Amino acid sequence: MPVEPRLLKGFRDFLPGEQAGRQAMIDRITRAFEACGFSPLSTPAIEYADILLGKYGDEGEKLLYRFQDNGGRDVALRYDLTVPLARVVAQYRDLPRPFRRYQVGTVWRAEKPAHGRFREFLQYDADIVGSASPLADADCLAAGILALQGLGLDRFRVRVGHRGVLDGMLDGAGLPRGSLRVDVLRVLDKWEKVGREAVAGMLAGLPGMDPGAAERVLEALGDGTDEGRVEALAARAPEAVGHLRGVLEAVRAMGFGEVVGMDLRIARGLDYYTGTVYETTLLDLPGVGSVMSGGRYDGLLQTYGVPSVPSVGISIGVDRLFAALTELGCAPKGVSGPQVVVCLLGEGVLRPGMALLTDLRRLGVRAETAPDPAARLKKQFEHAVRRQARYAVILGDAEVREGRGAVKDLASGDQQDVPIPDLPQWVRRRLAEE
Amino acid sequence: MPVEPRLLKGFRDFLPGEQAGRQAMIDRITRAFEACGFSPLSTPAIEYADILLGKYGDEGEKLLYRFQDNGGRDVALRYDLTVPLARVVAQYRDLPRPFRRYQVGTVWRAEKPAHGRFREFLQYDADIVGSASPLADADCLAAGILALQGLGLDRFRVRVGHRGVLDGMLDGAGLPRGSLRVDVLRVLDKWEKVGREAVAGMLAGLPGMDPGAAERVLEALGDGTDEGRVEALAARAPEAVGHLRGVLEAVRAMGFGEVVGMDLRIARGLDYYTGTVYETTLLDLPGVGSVMSGGRYDGLLQTYGVPSVPSVGISIGVDRLFAALTELGCAPKGVSGPQVVVCLLGEGVLRPGMALLTDLRRLGVRAETAPDPAARLKKQFEHAVRRQARYAVILGDAEVREGRGAVKDLASGDQQDVPIPDLPQWVRRRLAEE
Repeated sequence: MPVEPRLLKGFRDFLPGEQAGRQAMIDRITRAFEACGFSPLSTPAIEYADILLGKYGDEGEKLLYRFQDNGGRDVALRYDLTVPLARVVAQYRDLPRPFRRYQVGTVWRAEKPAHGRFREFLQYDADIVGSASPLADADCLAAGILALQGLGLDRFRVRVGHRGVLDGMLDGAGLPRGSLRVDVLRVLDKWEKVGREAVAGMLAGLPGMDPGAAERVLEALGDGTDEGRVEALAARAPEAVGHLRGVLEAVRAMGFGEVVGMDLRIARGLDYYTGTVYETTLLDLPGVGSVMSGGRYDGLLQTYGVPSVPSVGISIGVDRLFAALTELGCAPKGVSGPQVVVCLLGEGVLRPGMALLTDLRRLGVRAETAPDPAARLKKQFEHAVRRQARYAVILGDAEVREGRGAVKDLASGDQQDVPIPDLPQWVRRRLAEE
Repeated sequence: MPVEPRLLKGFRDFLPGEQAGRQAMIDRITRAFEACGFSPLSTPAIEYADILLGKYGDEGEKLLYRFQDNGGRDVALRYDLTVPLARVVAQYRDLPRPFRRYQVGTVWRAEKPAHGRFREFLQYDADIVGSASPLADADCLAAGILALQGLGLDRFRVRVGHRGVLDGMLDGAGLPRGSLRVDVLRVLDKWEKVGREAVAGMLAGLPGMDPGAAERVLEALGDGTDEGRVEALAARAPEAVGHLRGVLEAVRAMGFGEVVGMDLRIARGLDYYTGTVYETTLLDLPGVGSVMSGGRYDGLLQTYGVPSVPSVGISIGVDRLFAALTELGCAPKGVSGPQVVVCLLGEGVLRPGMALLTDLRRLGVRAETAPDPAARLKKQFEHAVRRQARYAVILGDAEVREGRGAVKDLASGDQQDVPIPDLPQWVRRRLAEE
């Protein structure tokens, strides 16, 4: 019985056109992250389940791909790249600190598939483990911003929040800590999507919330972006305010004042964040959600029985961003497919034709023959055109006897003879000049 | 209770030093595969189990990471990249043919972990789907050989076998087809590891094998590399012999005669191979096994209910090869970590220091500050040296007032003042000249 060729829901194939662009995008992010002094790390896709549990909140944990392996071990596919990083730093105790690493990798979440939401997707992270300095936050933000700008994006806004500052503000508004506080954060997190009015309604409707408190919360918070209000909290939460101020100051000094701003409404769902939190909105596509997020997670390593290590990082949602860039018409294209098709006229030229092919390829010129080099020249040309090659090189018995090949420019139709030994360099130079 | 940070057996972390080299290796393979006209594809790590079943033999199938997902679906992690490619071509019926794709990706096999054998590893494949021509085989081999040569390897041997030719030979030796034949192939596959004597003994000892037949098999096969014996089979298995001859002729014409040779003893375990099969041995490390393998699988697509499509490919075992290159002392190193550390002397220079940092990074210079820019200069220098930076740039109040930075060459100890606006380009030029 034949099996129907099909994909699981929430999973995707990337065919060559798209995948070439996706790879070009990854390359540009790599360049930005390396420019910022980050080094690559790779960790496995599968971890012992207990390494991942207790990190993502109850809702997150339900989304784990968790199963028993053939040896009966309780394992799970990674849900993000942050927790494996914490595991690595806890496991290899002699890594240099601060440890600045980038990692690109697939993560899996059994979400309900929806438009733009997938169960398998690529994340690209930059983190600094072992520095409590606001400069470490700023450096992660710089890496992410340079990556986005390197992709040709300029209309985006990085929003910087701080859980400690927000807590200080809510303390000041007389809101008790505890489960009501958690509910309030969850509501505030929806602000950008639903607007202030709706938030006010949702706050007032929270069980256990008295109407006065809801008003005081909104009053204290303003729209969450007024840095003046934060200064007033300096006495109540000096460390948090000082850190947040330090991060904003540093990213502004770095020249990113235009794209970065404070926004205390950001709470983010993950359990492990302890201080600053980051989200990034595309101004022309706010609906796609945050394309680059992160924050500080100073307590995460403790869960592995090692002393706490101050850590911060950002994560670019590669696939979400790629989809957005495609929608904006500025996704990188990448390159693939041959620049040159070598057309062979007859069995007798197989040997020189194949040798020429190798010479072209050794110079880095993307080159191939037509699939059937015994076909008529017209068919071989058609292949070259279909493959969007730049040049066709024609080798027949006469050409080979005279030690030359005919190079046809497939855009202009011009054709010119070039001595075979010079031909690969000749083509390469022409391609480089374009 | 803290969780012990640990890895599953058979899984690995790649810390920055190693991962940078691994990425450099992948980049070079990409360059070779693109030069040969292959384009990138990406497929999910998880497939419906039935997509993968019946492809890898009973032994292979036991090694699948197969589980029920949260929706109760029977799924499995991919075991190789060939079967997902076949699924893609069967599913998207309008892909251009021949379809030349490369793909690098993680695969999972629940093998017994052993030295050099892992449960998660990277494969890098190049395949051509939709061409029966020996030139397609040769092009896949060319891509793989150029990749290996691009990594600085020259002492390797690609062995080309052909199941059809071998069958013809064994028919000639009077060996019946059927289960005995399968056993014989399995024994022949061990030849390189155990030697001719041991193979002779194992053949003679096979249940159902009469001693005369074992001798005739060895007699017919010789050492498997004598192309003259194959010519004698041309009448018995004309198509197979013609194809094998065509492949060898083409790769020799391509200039790879030195590294490619026929070897009929190769059988390979995977069920889906139908004609040519390939293995690659490192002459200086034969014990690591094949680092690049593949073959023709003309029947694979039929299992998805589409007409058969002639297909061929090769697969580089990235991790096995990287380990081997490391052992041979020629693994690519890659680059990472900062080229420049900006040392700030005092809070007053944070702003110009951060701006300079961004300017360096925008030019692609890998740059960072010391983790604590308020530390004494000596400590900041020590950081620069530990990070193996090439230059330290020193900015103090005096320097900033005078609009210059001091650039210290950390190799020679030389130090020189450079105007701040020129400094990023100055450093970039110096680095480019090295």
